[in-house]
Amino acid sequence: MDTESIKKGIENGDRRFIAKAITMIEEGDSRIYEVLETFKDRIGKAKVFGITGPPGVGKSTLISKLVKEARNRDENVGVLLVDPSSPISGGALLGNRVRMIEEVSDPKVYARSLATRGWFGGLSRAIDDAMLVLEASGKTVIFIETVGAGQIETDIFKKADVVSLVLMPYSGDEIQALKAGLMEIADIYVINKGDLDRNKITGVTLRMIVGKEKKIVYTSALYNEGIKELYDAMMSKWEEYSKSGEIEKRRKMRMKSSLINDLNSFFFSLLEKFIKEHDEEMEKISEEILKGKISRYQASKELITKFESYIH
Amino acid sequence: MDTESIKKGIENGDRRFIAKAITMIEEGDSRIYEVLETFKDRIGKAKVFGITGPPGVGKSTLISKLVKEARNRDENVGVLLVDPSSPISGGALLGNRVRMIEEVSDPKVYARSLATRGWFGGLSRAIDDAMLVLEASGKTVIFIETVGAGQIETDIFKKADVVSLVLMPYSGDEIQALKAGLMEIADIYVINKGDLDRNKITGVTLRMIVGKEKKIVYTSALYNEGIKELYDAMMSKWEEYSKSGEIEKRRKMRMKSSLINDLNSFFFSLLEKFIKEHDEEMEKISEEILKGKISRYQASKELITKFESYIH
Repeated sequence: MDTESIKKGIENGDRRFIAKAITMIEEGDSRIYEVLETFKDRIGKAKVFGITGPPGVGKSTLISKLVKEARNRDENVGVLLVDPSSPISGGALLGNRVRMIEEVSDPKVYARSLATRGWFGGLSRAIDDAMLVLEASGKTVIFIETVGAGQIETDIFKKADVVSLVLMPYSGDEIQALKAGLMEIADIYVINKGDLDRNKITGVTLRMIVGKEKKIVYTSALYNEGIKELYDAMMSKWEEYSKSGEIEKRRKMRMKSSLINDLNSFFFSLLEKFIKEHDEEMEKISEEILKGKISRYQASKELITKFESYIH
Repeated sequence: MDTESIKKGIENGDRRFIAKAITMIEEGDSRIYEVLETFKDRIGKAKVFGITGPPGVGKSTLISKLVKEARNRDENVGVLLVDPSSPISGGALLGNRVRMIEEVSDPKVYARSLATRGWFGGLSRAIDDAMLVLEASGKTVIFIETVGAGQIETDIFKKADVVSLVLMPYSGDEIQALKAGLMEIADIYVINKGDLDRNKITGVTLRMIVGKEKKIVYTSALYNEGIKELYDAMMSKWEEYSKSGEIEKRRKMRMKSSLINDLNSFFFSLLEKFIKEHDEEMEKISEEILKGKISRYQASKELITKFESYIH
């Protein structure tokens, strides 16, 4: 497939070509950069909503309902399911989620899982590139869901204009723990599985933690309750942030961290090359350390000096 | 506190000094390197056992029982609880775990949580340094438990001589998912919470996945069942690996990846310096990209060139 037809296919919003482009992004196929180069002025055309939260709170069901709501309002919708590639959540699990969201008959919904290949920063770049493809294809609303939990999620936050944190009714202790990290980053708090009795108590605790100003929405994705309210909350947050200049600020921050990510990536490849070329030597040094002849700290220092002169 | 008294305190196995040293490691206090330098020949004195598995399978209870078993056999025991610093599992949660394992009356048990400060690689280095402190203090057996789940755990594997993967009775699907990553790295498989009926079924599925040769142990840490068997399995695996040269091989691999980690760390700090000094410029470039005037790819290329000449 030549790049010209991929480019045209994307511009026509054809899902097969969007899929092809994102696969090329995942695989690091350099021909995609030609395509992305021509799309440079299509950046930032969509509203980007991040959905995160611990595993098992029903994020995917929620998104499938939000997608339907967005379609009712005539938006052209893209969904990225991001897999931080934990050894536990394999790519196979995401396939079902994608199928849950997409409907074959509706060409204006495209859902896609994105997996890391190789090192950490690869995912960040893949998300940016995939978003640009979606924007170039005419998507007006993009949802990003993170699958799993942990460090990497806070990085995903940077990709979204408005972030919703989905929680289940928890005990107070767990809320305390959540307070440490995820709480501060979210714009909207969602208590899902609202068919359970304890969600009101969770709501009260949550309110104390996040303060009066923050938006809390109760949903039951399974029973289709609260979806409209959540969608409205997300949109009005977006409008509010758009007027106040917050969206612009966030997108600038996002782009800056993408540039840093690229620098990092370049660095990494240099380091990898050095390591490959010095494999035997590092093996020998490791032996010396394990024999107690040289400390790791001393050995590290010497290697770093060698690396410096390698770059120079 | 001067480094000489810390050194002597550690050599006497005094928990207060071990604690002080590990805090210095966590905080990156450079005086600790003087101490570690003098301990270079104490490396590798302990048998190191890694315990990992998904959250909620009872790893901490299991370790507290294994520690008691090790004490019955007159081992001097160290425990490191490693927190990959997910925003969800805060440091506060680890305090309880430490208290569960340690007994005030027994000076030959030292348990400690380790948290990442800052970037990814910091944890790897802190573990190595903390292990050296424990070895210098006379520990003969060290358990490393990973708290949480994900990418980072596979890195923790490299720190241990023998790795046990703890599982609960699962459905077949989840076992399939586990197959992708954690399965291949473990030496011993533990099915915990054996008071549940389904564990035998899990055992059969697990056996099919891991093959005939692998050791599967059934435990119920809560009811104190199977602990001796697990301990024996870990020790005999260690002896087997020791004779076959596998331990030596693993430790060499571990040390090599520590050196790589150090190089990486050095790199990172250089990059950070560059980014700080070019903050304004990156802000400006980000704006240009968001206005569609330049592609991210083009901007990245230019920044990398600038960075290269920065190092030179």
